[in-house]
Amino acid sequence: MMDAGRIRHTVAFALSHDRGSDEERDFLAAAEQLAAIPGVEAFELLAEVSPKNAFRFGISMEFADQDAYESYNAHPDHVRFVEERWLPEVADFLEIDYATR
Amino acid sequence: MMDAGRIRHTVAFALSHDRGSDEERDFLAAAEQLAAIPGVEAFELLAEVSPKNAFRFGISMEFADQDAYESYNAHPDHVRFVEERWLPEVADFLEIDYATR
Repeated sequence: MMDAGRIRHTVAFALSHDRGSDEERDFLAAAEQLAAIPGVEAFELLAEVSPKNAFRFGISMEFADQDAYESYNAHPDHVRFVEERWLPEVADFLEIDYATR
Repeated sequence: MMDAGRIRHTVAFALSHDRGSDEERDFLAAAEQLAAIPGVEAFELLAEVSPKNAFRFGISMEFADQDAYESYNAHPDHVRFVEERWLPEVADFLEIDYATR
């Protein structure tokens, strides 16, 4: 169980690239680099495997608190990834963020 | 990072009950009991806190493999919870399942 105040930021997504393509591999390799941004903990790049939705991948990461989450969002490496890779290459996505109750 | 073959089953949801109501508390207490079903690991009942979707809670659990997941789905306690609590009391939900890539 997460500690109080922590946030688990997740995003399920599908790419516009063909399954198993070089473009897909290149995008996923770039996404892995988000793990190096300060404040990112417990980073996971996952396969989405439920037949009940059309997403094919997921990213999960944790932040110690809301400030760490906001610093990540504003970090130049994150902003650049969103502009240069996420927006042009992601076909659909949903962000879901969890905290303790 | 999860071990290969494991499945992290998650569901984000919103209830038809008023926020902070007795009905909400009673539903969440019943949902907590899913943790006792054989095969369920790393059970978490969470708050959904992203302003980018309308879900308000989440459940996350892990299974050692697909067989454990299917046994959970078919377990009488799970089937009863879905029929008696989930279907009548959940207003919206999305299941997202993750595995290693």
